Amino acid sequence: MDEAIITYISTYVPLTNEEIRIIKEQNLIRRYQKNELLLTEGAFASECYFVLSGCVRAYYLIDGEERNTDFYFENQTITPVSYQTHSASEYYLSCLEDSVLAVGSDARNKKLVEQIPKLASLLLQMNGELLIQKTVELDKFKNHTPEQRYVKLLEENPRLINRVPLYHLASYLGITQVSLSRIRRRVARLHR
Amino acid sequence: MDEAIITYISTYVPLTNEEIRIIKEQNLIRRYQKNELLLTEGAFASECYFVLSGCVRAYYLIDGEERNTDFYFENQTITPVSYQTHSASEYYLSCLEDSVLAVGSDARNKKLVEQIPKLASLLLQMNGELLIQKTVELDKFKNHTPEQRYVKLLEENPRLINRVPLYHLASYLGITQVSLSRIRRRVARLHR
Repeated sequence: MDEAIITYISTYVPLTNEEIRIIKEQNLIRRYQKNELLLTEGAFASECYFVLSGCVRAYYLIDGEERNTDFYFENQTITPVSYQTHSASEYYLSCLEDSVLAVGSDARNKKLVEQIPKLASLLLQMNGELLIQKTVELDKFKNHTPEQRYVKLLEENPRLINRVPLYHLASYLGITQVSLSRIRRRVARLHR
Repeated sequence: MDEAIITYISTYVPLTNEEIRIIKEQNLIRRYQKNELLLTEGAFASECYFVLSGCVRAYYLIDGEERNTDFYFENQTITPVSYQTHSASEYYLSCLEDSVLAVGSDARNKKLVEQIPKLASLLLQMNGELLIQKTVELDKFKNHTPEQRYVKLLEENPRLINRVPLYHLASYLGITQVSLSRIRRRVARLHR
């Protein structure tokens, strides 16, 4: 699993053998079980994550109902708002599948950037990409109907449709489960 | 207006007199008129912006209708998706008011960071904050009704309500103008 991190980082910045050794000796990798919680509402996040395998779900608990806002898969980073702002988290992070994650913390990341300064530009690039992704996602959410959102997801992010249970997908699309079933029937009919 | 940039940067990283001199001699500042376009659909953005005064509006043109997705005010940065991804823009940027902007480009930013390396950490922090902002905005959009969105805006971003015409605000909230009028009447009644 260490290799997966090295490969990912290498697509942004080339690493020397010595740098690879430093990264590996950090023991960044941890294994989590399905339904294990990484963060709860009201807690202060002290860690950020990079998904090596599995899937992590972000959700708010509103009037006793779970509202899903994000699903993180392989090669995606998870930087909790609470981690960045040092304020209490408003949402939960839970493993939707058994997951293997690389785990970072402020102290750890700082030490790593001190040892390998070029990782700073990696963080900058990754943040920049995440920012673009969020911007595009928000724009789409505003500009598209729920059905258009579903069709876009099918086209652009099939792993989300394939790996996320339908009862989690509905709130992510901003609709009820009944509406989602209706949309799915209509889309299936149109594409038959 | 140069002072406004210096003040802003100084809240992130302290600047020496020499560094202030370097920033000032870049001539970053440009003035735009109301309704002037900074970016059009299909164009490749070569510039990013920092708003010193005025307001810039981002909108998509969908079936002949303008759908607003963002309003940028004083002390906000505008990094077009097209600028980051080097692909054709899907949206427009237009000045909603007469505006004064600091204008950056890849070449210019790179040169500036070479001359003042600590600006790299400023960019990282700014991007990080923008990412948080977008994440929170998207989560709210998913979790709140249009009326809740409007009330939240009133509380948290009154300049948006005060300076953006109602006909632009409706699509930003994801609703029709008729719905927005209804919500405004109801909210006014409740708060009387």
